[in-house]
Amino acid sequence: MTTTLITGGTVVSATGRGKADVLIDDETIVAVLQPGSELLGTDVAASVDRVIDATGKYVIPGGIDAHTHMQLPFGGTSASDTFETGTRAAAWGGTTTIIDFAVQTYGGDVFEGLGKWHDLAAGNCAIDYGFHQIIGGIDEASLAAMPKLIDEGISSFKLFMAYPGVFYSDDAQILRAMQVSRDTGLLTMMHAENGPAIDVLAAQLVEQGKTDPFYHGIARAWQMEEEATHRAIMLANLTGAPLYVVHVSAKQAVKQLAWARDKGQNVFGETCPQYLYLSLEEQLGAKSDEWGAFEGAKWVCSTPIRSREDGHQDYMWQALRTNDLQMVSTDHCPFCMKDQKELGLGDFRKIPNGIGSVEHRMDLMYQGVVTGKLTLERWVELTSTTPARMFGLYGRKGVIQPGADGDVVIYDPNGHTSIGVNNTHHMNMDHSAWEGYEIDGHVDTVLSRGKVIVDGGQYLGSKGDGRYLKRGLSQYLT
Amino acid sequence: MTTTLITGGTVVSATGRGKADVLIDDETIVAVLQPGSELLGTDVAASVDRVIDATGKYVIPGGIDAHTHMQLPFGGTSASDTFETGTRAAAWGGTTTIIDFAVQTYGGDVFEGLGKWHDLAAGNCAIDYGFHQIIGGIDEASLAAMPKLIDEGISSFKLFMAYPGVFYSDDAQILRAMQVSRDTGLLTMMHAENGPAIDVLAAQLVEQGKTDPFYHGIARAWQMEEEATHRAIMLANLTGAPLYVVHVSAKQAVKQLAWARDKGQNVFGETCPQYLYLSLEEQLGAKSDEWGAFEGAKWVCSTPIRSREDGHQDYMWQALRTNDLQMVSTDHCPFCMKDQKELGLGDFRKIPNGIGSVEHRMDLMYQGVVTGKLTLERWVELTSTTPARMFGLYGRKGVIQPGADGDVVIYDPNGHTSIGVNNTHHMNMDHSAWEGYEIDGHVDTVLSRGKVIVDGGQYLGSKGDGRYLKRGLSQYLT
Amino acid sequence: MTTTLITGGTVVSATGRGKADVLIDDETIVAVLQPGSELLGTDVAASVDRVIDATGKYVIPGGIDAHTHMQLPFGGTSASDTFETGTRAAAWGGTTTIIDFAVQTYGGDVFEGLGKWHDLAAGNCAIDYGFHQIIGGIDEASLAAMPKLIDEGISSFKLFMAYPGVFYSDDAQILRAMQVSRDTGLLTMMHAENGPAIDVLAAQLVEQGKTDPFYHGIARAWQMEEEATHRAIMLANLTGAPLYVVHVSAKQAVKQLAWARDKGQNVFGETCPQYLYLSLEEQLGAKSDEWGAFEGAKWVCSTPIRSREDGHQDYMWQALRTNDLQMVSTDHCPFCMKDQKELGLGDFRKIPNGIGSVEHRMDLMYQGVVTGKLTLERWVELTSTTPARMFGLYGRKGVIQPGADGDVVIYDPNGHTSIGVNNTHHMNMDHSAWEGYEIDGHVDTVLSRGKVIVDGGQYLGSKGDGRYLKRGLSQYLT
Amino acid sequence: MTTTLITGGTVVSATGRGKADVLIDDETIVAVLQPGSELLGTDVAASVDRVIDATGKYVIPGGIDAHTHMQLPFGGTSASDTFETGTRAAAWGGTTTIIDFAVQTYGGDVFEGLGKWHDLAAGNCAIDYGFHQIIGGIDEASLAAMPKLIDEGISSFKLFMAYPGVFYSDDAQILRAMQVSRDTGLLTMMHAENGPAIDVLAAQLVEQGKTDPFYHGIARAWQMEEEATHRAIMLANLTGAPLYVVHVSAKQAVKQLAWARDKGQNVFGETCPQYLYLSLEEQLGAKSDEWGAFEGAKWVCSTPIRSREDGHQDYMWQALRTNDLQMVSTDHCPFCMKDQKELGLGDFRKIPNGIGSVEHRMDLMYQGVVTGKLTLERWVELTSTTPARMFGLYGRKGVIQPGADGDVVIYDPNGHTSIGVNNTHHMNMDHSAWEGYEIDGHVDTVLSRGKVIVDGGQYLGSKGDGRYLKRGLSQYLT
Repeated sequence: MTTTLITGGTVVSATGRGKADVLIDDETIVAVLQPGSELLGTDVAASVDRVIDATGKYVIPGGIDAHTHMQLPFGGTSASDTFETGTRAAAWGGTTTIIDFAVQTYGGDVFEGLGKWHDLAAGNCAIDYGFHQIIGGIDEASLAAMPKLIDEGISSFKLFMAYPGVFYSDDAQILRAMQVSRDTGLLTMMHAENGPAIDVLAAQLVEQGKTDPFYHGIARAWQMEEEATHRAIMLANLTGAPLYVVHVSAKQAVKQLAWARDKGQNVFGETCPQYLYLSLEEQLGAKSDEWGAFEGAKWVCSTPIRSREDGHQDYMWQALRTNDLQMVSTDHCPFCMKDQKELGLGDFRKIPNGIGSVEHRMDLMYQGVVTGKLTLERWVELTSTTPARMFGLYGRKGVIQPGADGDVVIYDPNGHTSIGVNNTHHMNMDHSAWEGYEIDGHVDTVLSRGKVIVDGGQYLGSKGDGRYLKRGLSQYLT
Repeated sequence: MTTTLITGGTVVSATGRGKADVLIDDETIVAVLQPGSELLGTDVAASVDRVIDATGKYVIPGGIDAHTHMQLPFGGTSASDTFETGTRAAAWGGTTTIIDFAVQTYGGDVFEGLGKWHDLAAGNCAIDYGFHQIIGGIDEASLAAMPKLIDEGISSFKLFMAYPGVFYSDDAQILRAMQVSRDTGLLTMMHAENGPAIDVLAAQLVEQGKTDPFYHGIARAWQMEEEATHRAIMLANLTGAPLYVVHVSAKQAVKQLAWARDKGQNVFGETCPQYLYLSLEEQLGAKSDEWGAFEGAKWVCSTPIRSREDGHQDYMWQALRTNDLQMVSTDHCPFCMKDQKELGLGDFRKIPNGIGSVEHRMDLMYQGVVTGKLTLERWVELTSTTPARMFGLYGRKGVIQPGADGDVVIYDPNGHTSIGVNNTHHMNMDHSAWEGYEIDGHVDTVLSRGKVIVDGGQYLGSKGDGRYLKRGLSQYLT
Repeated sequence: MTTTLITGGTVVSATGRGKADVLIDDETIVAVLQPGSELLGTDVAASVDRVIDATGKYVIPGGIDAHTHMQLPFGGTSASDTFETGTRAAAWGGTTTIIDFAVQTYGGDVFEGLGKWHDLAAGNCAIDYGFHQIIGGIDEASLAAMPKLIDEGISSFKLFMAYPGVFYSDDAQILRAMQVSRDTGLLTMMHAENGPAIDVLAAQLVEQGKTDPFYHGIARAWQMEEEATHRAIMLANLTGAPLYVVHVSAKQAVKQLAWARDKGQNVFGETCPQYLYLSLEEQLGAKSDEWGAFEGAKWVCSTPIRSREDGHQDYMWQALRTNDLQMVSTDHCPFCMKDQKELGLGDFRKIPNGIGSVEHRMDLMYQGVVTGKLTLERWVELTSTTPARMFGLYGRKGVIQPGADGDVVIYDPNGHTSIGVNNTHHMNMDHSAWEGYEIDGHVDTVLSRGKVIVDGGQYLGSKGDGRYLKRGLSQYLT
Repeated sequence: MTTTLITGGTVVSATGRGKADVLIDDETIVAVLQPGSELLGTDVAASVDRVIDATGKYVIPGGIDAHTHMQLPFGGTSASDTFETGTRAAAWGGTTTIIDFAVQTYGGDVFEGLGKWHDLAAGNCAIDYGFHQIIGGIDEASLAAMPKLIDEGISSFKLFMAYPGVFYSDDAQILRAMQVSRDTGLLTMMHAENGPAIDVLAAQLVEQGKTDPFYHGIARAWQMEEEATHRAIMLANLTGAPLYVVHVSAKQAVKQLAWARDKGQNVFGETCPQYLYLSLEEQLGAKSDEWGAFEGAKWVCSTPIRSREDGHQDYMWQALRTNDLQMVSTDHCPFCMKDQKELGLGDFRKIPNGIGSVEHRMDLMYQGVVTGKLTLERWVELTSTTPARMFGLYGRKGVIQPGADGDVVIYDPNGHTSIGVNNTHHMNMDHSAWEGYEIDGHVDTVLSRGKVIVDGGQYLGSKGDGRYLKRGLSQYLT
């Protein structure tokens, strides 16, 4: 039982900031105190086992990345980060919780899928982790299984309107799953793109010889994200299900979410750093010595990155500010260029979809504070507090208060972070989608349940430090 | 120097809830602690001067009513609550801070007006208080004075698009004031009703013999609130000023606010309990033995209460949930029926405008939690945390955290409150606009800067307990 | 070669009205003349073979009903009107052109389907007729066939987002068909309801024992019409296809159309008399001695009639006035109660969908003029001129001008029409969905290509009078 | 009594086109006939006094310019076209009717103002003319006078939300005038710009030394047009008055109109050629040898021309197509550079506001047909038919049908028109705002009430040909 005092820092919450000390007893925060003072005659700093000086720095709840895909099988390969490498990279970047996706595939058993993912993660994670459940096949069995997920600590499931033949659910299936969502409080997460239509466009492009990575984004037109978003909203409206749309990238899709929310519907949206920073124009221009135009494959993800000329990126930042989008996750799904992305040489449809960002989310979003796009409080809210509230972790995660897990990040606003140069990142990738990004801030120290796992540029944690998190229902069901 | 421990309760914040003890040293919260535990070997409860048991109850930051008008001169009389009686009533109802309005009238000096209000309040208040500044006359002098208000701890000013000849500013004046707002960060508050048009309608109704209080609401048509709201938004858009619209009552006005916010504009809106509960239809039906149809005068306020058939009340509740409205204040502006409201017998235009609610806001809003319209967290956010953030008080007020003032309310969800029966309220009014309202909850104990001022059904405070609050800039300027 | 002069009437067009005489030579209008006057020394009335006195009456271009389904096979039976009975009934009601739907079913050949419908119609019609082509199965063959339809005089085709397994096209198919639409100018007509989702709801209702006709409208929820309308719009937006949504009944669907049109998209919508007059509430209340609650089956059509409480009917009238809807057709698809509608006793899903209105459209819409919902000009525009422009008939049909076919209706605003009493209508139905409707106007005389086919309460035409109309492209493609 | 036959042309109406001959007897169209044919045994061409061959050309109803200001006093000078020069220039350009504005100024008598304008116009006009009435001062007298305007053939009046101290009406006044509008059917026309706010911005710019013409458009920010448009809409909504917004130039103002129309409100908007073609960027760049940056003064009008980068011009074209705008007028208000525009050297506020376009409207709009932005029919509708319907002239004007005035334009689509080179135009201006515009079409022949007034590049009419038109109520009051 170690007692730790983080002292002298500015504790930042979703609603404000203030100088305060944080006292952690073993794994748990036990008090938030006026800084430096005696408390009832006790010199707190002198009484604890360890004092961490956070003077001049921000003390924030550890980041929660609610959308990762460690070692996900996709397109004949698997995401290159294991739970071990991926969660360690997350820790480096100030993220102390991930929620990954267990997968049930069409015809498979929900709990068998979940069990497989438990096997992959257990004993391997650097930080705590939870699961959403992908339901790749809505049928009587999976519908019957869904309510039981709650007992397993899984309070959200994800459906796909894209990827026919893989994860795709049709509207009849979505409707039935949403009825379960309404009845149980399980939050419906949706990949909202009209896959059948997109697949026609993609095939036509390939037939026309337009096979470069850039055409991935042309095929996945914004109209088909907007459309699917609206469709998901209306199915949710019809059933009364709460809805959470993942990886929103088109401004028109955001407008649909705002439209539904303004009518009082319980609808939410996340975006990801790639939709805030990267653009189709840069992808079109990407031509490295090694890969030529195929260099753009490193930015192939779905939903795709979008046109800067059309203003999608600016709109995403604005929507984060106005709360038309509520959260930032990464959709971390890394693939190496070698042997993985290159499967799509000559046919963009075969490029595994995904970008690795789990390590950089906190930094990339902090840069939004530096540039005045977000307040410091909104940064904490988007990356930690709302994820915790949204996915049933609040109290243990997402907040610095007594009783919460000692997941704390000390962030130095005067530090600096250069991302991805010479593959200095810690994700298991042979490249970085973020190479060259410079951040005016730095993750100095990371505590996970009271244990310092990153400090002084060292990783101090161990494989298996992270535990499975049984999650409760979303706080946003009303 | 007294130390107080509030123990065993559930501390509710704007983002969540959790069991925690709150330690107050003299006037200030010094720690939030895991309940019941020893802290570093010290038995906290045994070490403090006073322990308040909050078991089974909510422990919340004291309410902040950001819109009151104590002893405001209006229509040839003055609001019937003095700072003494009004703030005491507020304390009874769990509100520990008010922000009242100092008044500069046309041709008058801004600081002279402010000085007069300081004189009225100083030494008389039961709870802490701040001021917004009404600028009743935009001219060179007042424009020059406005930036200096910040040094006086006044970070917001209010203009009126209604009441020509009294508080009214025309669009040219509003534009110039908003330029100051943009340049300084002073938040522009707006009474958004098209007064000149309304006054024509009101005069026509009186000419037609339609003089009952009910016609007040007919004259002040929703179109003229919607219109003025849009106009204020566009003037703010043009200048870049932050805008806060007071006492929103028409659903169409809310839609304008949502429209502007969805475009990224820094626009906010408050509503009041009367717009959530009362309706024009009830006003039409009101006919007491004593007053006949003039009974409706007790509900005459501006903006007016609106038609339930048109769904305004439901829409306000929804907008509070979706954050299209951000706060609930009272616009407390009480007038007695006798000698005051009755000035308008035979001509509704002469009824002093205002309803007294400062005592009931926390209860009336809590009833929204009971009926499922709001979450417990949203209740705290709407009534305390957001007001503190909006008006530059956060850190001292609006949150339970170390360093904050010991303004704490212990609210019993199993208690009960009957409002207004036989004038049992504590506001200086000869009637209640809220008589008959029953709340499933009760304000048990109220602490103001560490002093228990309400407990056990007793008022334990003193005139002059409350101090003037110099406010900082709004947290929402980005 | 007969010359006919219609004299003394008020000729009404889509843009205005004026007293004028209409001179028809054989089948064709050859002149529109100042009334009563000599023309270049010739006494016109004295020079023609026949003078029809239209004094005090409206002279309008014959009605065009662009949406009928004569003898359509549906649900194991066929629509009860043949081309003979149906077109004769149309003539009685002042409609001189129908556009019916030829059907290609899944796996069938487009031209084979068209040929079959030509066989059904040829030699049987009382009035001129054209065809739209239903494409019940988008595949390589039908996609290749579509452009050739233009040579056949068919400039529009219809897809279904409802009726899986019957007419349904999925989004991939719709996308491909719309690409043909964009490339050729063929107008895409869409039945916009989310069939897969609706079928789930319908099955669930039947499982719950909710089998009455009323539940047909519950299953076909407005959300699923709104959704499909939006989806069709976005697929059209993506492809650049012109889109025409048939039988719009939900106000929310109209809002989607208006939204798209305000953005400049080439999108159109029709509604039908049933969506203007009939309601779900009346269907719920319908309980005859003969049929009990199954009486409501006479109003079972898709899209369904909707709730009056929710204001759909009023909204449709308004949308016709504001041009958010552009046309009124009937979707005439009659079924008798006996042997046909009664197939759905005990299971509303088996009730053949359809209402017979081809005879009453002009009258029912004229009643909108009487009640002030439409202008006289808008009546002509909605029922004749716009249908002609929309579907490539303008010049021959839809207007009274030289060179146009002599399709003229003389409408008496002082007449009266009682609809459907004791099955006095001329449609081949054993009941009327419109029984009891009283119209302040009357179709007096109907000319089809110069031949008087209805006059003095007599049908004077013959089977086979009507000819097939090769249509050109829509006038609204820009 | 001359009879004229226009033969061989394509008659274009608002709804379609077709080959037809037009027979005019003296001043009036007496028949529209099948081309070339005998009529009842009479060889028409041989029987008339004059045959005009229109083969290969369009035969359209003469243009109606519903917004002109001949010799308007403004800013210490007067518009440079008299009724004589201005209407002759109009004739040259295919416009056969203008509706000009009679002016009542503040404190003046309505009928005195009207009388003055009658005096100015009578006996001087080349084409027929009507009047709207400007009400520059709403008071008891003018309110009482307004209903009597209808007897004078004036069915519309105009108010200004701009120009305080000149034409400005405040909202109380507008409300009262709109009540008259609702009660009488007089159409309310509105100059919708927030003048008081704009005047503050303009004064501030001048104080900052920003005095060039370009700053005129900066001061008159789009926000203040959007705002005033919304305000006018809501005052109309409140009163039930029909509303027509003149010279709409901001896309955001169009969105307000569309929003109101989609809700069913009777609201209309016109735009002008300058808002379709000219831009603020070009004005900023304008620097001639003679005038330097003051060259931009030739494009100073109110509302101002707007930014092309922001897409206003494209949006106006789109809105004309979608009918979110219904008409195109010119707001013809010409001032010479010399002695007039140059009054504003050193202070853009003193530049007389106005552009001369009455001669070029038909050509400039036809170019929209050439470029595919409008259909031929829509061209006729926007420039002639809708103006006639909107302002109570339909039947006599705006349509080619028996009984209509013989106002006909023969337009050659194979002709060419170069505008404004070396002041070859016929307006009384020392420059052209349109110099350099090339049109793929040409006004060949113009008939006014049967008289050929332009033909073969010659003006054949006389001063005084034009007569005053008593107008009826708008056709769009329902």
